[in-house]
Amino acid sequence: LTDVAAIRAAAARATAIRRTPLLSAPALDRLAGRRVLVKAECLQVTGSFKARGAWAAVSALGPAERQRGILAYSSGNHAQGVAWAAAAHAVPATILMPSDAPATKIDGTRAFGAEVVLYDRATEDRDALGARLAAERGLTLIPPFDHPEVIAGQGTTGLEIAAQAADAGVAAADVLVCCGGGGLSAGIALALEAEAPGLRVRPVEPAGFDDMARSLAAGERLGNPPGARSICDAILTPRPGALTFPVLERLAGPGLAVSDAEALSAMRVAFETLRIVLEPGGAVSLTAALSRADAIAGDAVICVASGGNVAPALFAEAIRPA
Amino acid sequence: LTDVAAIRAAAARATAIRRTPLLSAPALDRLAGRRVLVKAECLQVTGSFKARGAWAAVSALGPAERQRGILAYSSGNHAQGVAWAAAAHAVPATILMPSDAPATKIDGTRAFGAEVVLYDRATEDRDALGARLAAERGLTLIPPFDHPEVIAGQGTTGLEIAAQAADAGVAAADVLVCCGGGGLSAGIALALEAEAPGLRVRPVEPAGFDDMARSLAAGERLGNPPGARSICDAILTPRPGALTFPVLERLAGPGLAVSDAEALSAMRVAFETLRIVLEPGGAVSLTAALSRADAIAGDAVICVASGGNVAPALFAEAIRPA
Repeated sequence: LTDVAAIRAAAARATAIRRTPLLSAPALDRLAGRRVLVKAECLQVTGSFKARGAWAAVSALGPAERQRGILAYSSGNHAQGVAWAAAAHAVPATILMPSDAPATKIDGTRAFGAEVVLYDRATEDRDALGARLAAERGLTLIPPFDHPEVIAGQGTTGLEIAAQAADAGVAAADVLVCCGGGGLSAGIALALEAEAPGLRVRPVEPAGFDDMARSLAAGERLGNPPGARSICDAILTPRPGALTFPVLERLAGPGLAVSDAEALSAMRVAFETLRIVLEPGGAVSLTAALSRADAIAGDAVICVASGGNVAPALFAEAIRPA
Repeated sequence: LTDVAAIRAAAARATAIRRTPLLSAPALDRLAGRRVLVKAECLQVTGSFKARGAWAAVSALGPAERQRGILAYSSGNHAQGVAWAAAAHAVPATILMPSDAPATKIDGTRAFGAEVVLYDRATEDRDALGARLAAERGLTLIPPFDHPEVIAGQGTTGLEIAAQAADAGVAAADVLVCCGGGGLSAGIALALEAEAPGLRVRPVEPAGFDDMARSLAAGERLGNPPGARSICDAILTPRPGALTFPVLERLAGPGLAVSDAEALSAMRVAFETLRIVLEPGGAVSLTAALSRADAIAGDAVICVASGGNVAPALFAEAIRPA
């Protein structure tokens, strides 16, 4: 299981990971009604925090595993993170991606030299396909969130937040984190527990995919009702992770959920006030700061803006004047 | 006159200025044909490097000057920088802006509490209007580039570049700088002369407004031919500064010029590969790295991306798929 020692060890190995800035703007504070600090993981290598967990996991592999190669399933950001980390370690990477993943993300993954295997979400069994590839080739699976080293790598974000919040004079605040399976949220929560106990993680999800929020409220892992849709492709996961949920049950505050329209609006605010590019799933934390202000306590709030890999047409729609 | 001691003193006073990251991406390196390091001043407070020079100039004022207030002329980024720095020092600010300046920039300036006085570029004499306001109110003028403290403040960018390039293992490279009157270029050149002599500033301008490039080639300050137009509103200046030109004549390499269409294309590349928002005038340095590769020497190039205050409609046009 991941602890802060594992996170510190991942940070010590993370030689190619960028320390992303904690951004702010007076105009953003005015819109949110309190001070807002944005951890800009869209500026991370590969455009999302996923590079952190991928680097941690790949750098922890032994020589034999490295030689055989690694396998990952992902609709995009994890794929790019793993492909990048594998290439940097000279490890062959095979990435299983749904054929309807954003072209930006498929192209980005291939550009790092990974072999991308596309499958049809509707008709093919991803897990069976992955298991067959792994067995045939002797590949090591790097899961997107439920993996101790992946959680440790994502937790390096929390070490940076602890230091940067202290520099900004913020000792107590909610830390809103875009949440799919909970790897980023859990890693940050573990880091903050040790280094900034006044900062409390609160997962933020798209409406219809708020399995973590409902699971935290219920005290058990719940899935999402069928049929929901969202543009937040990066964080649409069926249920909380087996490793991440107990961490968040112990350390995180109540979850929050936001709509796609609210996420698009927050993308525009980030564009105008911070000059950063966020994808919908990377903007839900900021969305909650702007649209769920009454559900947040304190004079300051920290938002982890987790990714910026967005198709130009969708971004243009988000910033279009109302 | 500005020297590196003045730049170091400005850096020591720059308590509210952000140390912006030096960004990179493998996909960007591939497009440019060499390693590209982007100094992301679009992430600076107020969305451009102008906050640096404004802070340096306002923080250097004495108590009587602070009490009477300051005056600035600007179509946008300098206005916002000065308004922000003045507000932070509790100094009243009056900003003269052309009535056709981008609404984003006028609104941004007012949001910092400055009094914005609009004038008609075609029918009113800005200098006479400014002189009258300054005389009536006892205001101190903060010019956009030709001022020792403003140049010193912009030069703090160069101190950061010297340190960040060393961290990145780059000791020799062209440093492409978006150039209007030359304050940023001159400040950076002075800082690099002292701290990273292998890095050489090269000013980049919009075609039709390449007065600095032609002046450097001619060895004397030349103006621009009449009638040219460009969307690079941030860097359209009539001629090199009296203080900035001698610095660049001594220290800078040949200037470069790029078209508006090329600048829009570079904005899209920055969006896709770095997830940052650049305005046209803040993107010409990156534009030159992408579109004038043959005119640049070395394995690596550094681009100062100087601002990101762009209207949503124009940004949407830039990122529209071809």
